[in-house]
Amino acid sequence: MSRVTARRPVVRLRGEHRTERPDTLVVEEPLEIRVGGRALAVTMRTPGDDMDLAAGFLVSEGVVTKPEHLSSMRFCDGAGEDGLNTYNVLDLTLAPGVAAPDPSVERAFYTTSSCGVCGKASLDAVRTSTAYAVADDPVQVTAGLVTSLPDALRAAQKVFDRTGGLHAAGLFTAEGRMLCMREDVGRHNAVDKVVGWALTHDLLPLRGTVLMVSGRASFELTQKAWMAGIPVLAAVSAPSSLAVDLAEEAGMTLIGFVRGDGLNVYTGSSRVLEDATAVGA
Amino acid sequence: MSRVTARRPVVRLRGEHRTERPDTLVVEEPLEIRVGGRALAVTMRTPGDDMDLAAGFLVSEGVVTKPEHLSSMRFCDGAGEDGLNTYNVLDLTLAPGVAAPDPSVERAFYTTSSCGVCGKASLDAVRTSTAYAVADDPVQVTAGLVTSLPDALRAAQKVFDRTGGLHAAGLFTAEGRMLCMREDVGRHNAVDKVVGWALTHDLLPLRGTVLMVSGRASFELTQKAWMAGIPVLAAVSAPSSLAVDLAEEAGMTLIGFVRGDGLNVYTGSSRVLEDATAVGA
Repeated sequence: MSRVTARRPVVRLRGEHRTERPDTLVVEEPLEIRVGGRALAVTMRTPGDDMDLAAGFLVSEGVVTKPEHLSSMRFCDGAGEDGLNTYNVLDLTLAPGVAAPDPSVERAFYTTSSCGVCGKASLDAVRTSTAYAVADDPVQVTAGLVTSLPDALRAAQKVFDRTGGLHAAGLFTAEGRMLCMREDVGRHNAVDKVVGWALTHDLLPLRGTVLMVSGRASFELTQKAWMAGIPVLAAVSAPSSLAVDLAEEAGMTLIGFVRGDGLNVYTGSSRVLEDATAVGA
Repeated sequence: MSRVTARRPVVRLRGEHRTERPDTLVVEEPLEIRVGGRALAVTMRTPGDDMDLAAGFLVSEGVVTKPEHLSSMRFCDGAGEDGLNTYNVLDLTLAPGVAAPDPSVERAFYTTSSCGVCGKASLDAVRTSTAYAVADDPVQVTAGLVTSLPDALRAAQKVFDRTGGLHAAGLFTAEGRMLCMREDVGRHNAVDKVVGWALTHDLLPLRGTVLMVSGRASFELTQKAWMAGIPVLAAVSAPSSLAVDLAEEAGMTLIGFVRGDGLNVYTGSSRVLEDATAVGA
């Protein structure tokens, strides 16, 4: 199950110097997420925390919000060519009364959406309904705290140090205490793993928290943060226009370009205090 | 149609300094790709070169390899709330005799794959059959040429300079001449746009070329390069284990960590010459 990294031979060229030696790479493998035996999604992920990943995926899809909504999670016992379990298929069983994600929703969209509403229908299709209001979350953070989070995230990233190939998502309190950090070859998977961890610890909605991500802030990450009730999303790099629009709609605080002693606040800036304000408070 | 960037207000915090002004963001919007009126995929992309994106997507899926395989591409005339065309739905018509992507393939996999072969079936599901052999491509490049490509790519990235939020993919000859560069909020979209450009110019397979990408080398990008017949894929950051495995299987050259005067060659190293070799040749 410890398949987070793999060794591969590599030829290094530096100017005239050519050396050969093994290199450590981050592992990327497909994970098929099933609900009640039916395949829901296949995601390319870094193995590890797969149950958190699957649980977080179901939170993002609006299927579950409480740990008791999931009655079991188990790896299917399929085997690869070497006879070993692939650990690449995870089957989740929902508790009685929890509605399964409706496969007809996506298919109906794909087969019946008309041109007249197509742009809107497409956008609706990639959005999901949210379970939590975050606009009224009164949490506030200082700029200095937020600018300290990338270093905290990096310090906790053990696999990145060896491979340089992983995204990270870290969940922090407003005081900067790290609650959970997850790494993955895919940004959305890292966030799903954090949200899934929170679900299994019955912490949803994640009021008063800050989610720090290593890359850019996309629509998808903003949506996932909203679905988990996270009021503040901060990214090392740029947000997209649609991420900003969605954060505005949600009443979330969206922060980008968290670098050095600076940051940019795109929405919900009342939650972010200048350091001087904090000192004088 | 010029919707690559958008302006949004932003609050900048630098230490004690708080300033407010508009910021330029990269636009992210959903594009629904239809074939013969049937929706095939929705991707979150940066508007622009959408027809290249859709064409390249169909190359990656193994549907088309020649410009004449596509008889038309048009935006559906759906309108948003403002009454304007959303330009977010693109309908492609295949030429007579070109087999449409079979929707039952994915559904059959999702509904009938058994646990006994699940890991294998999942991997097969994310792989597609390739149209071109690249293992016999005799192209060679010098390390010095490859290390010059990230700067060439960045120099051509006009939107990145304004937003800091875009991935890029650039197609180069073995002599370092840029044939095509495309930017997108999604790495896979940038590659699809380049491949679609090549399709419409009847350049497939792209023998003798080098594809330089701004981020990491994932399984998906390696697959797309292979489907377009590109023998050399170079990435600024790390490759994943599965990207290396696929490149090995394809006989492609996979290069990672192209930074400064160095690079790492993970597969097909006979195509990469030390600079001293080149000078002495």
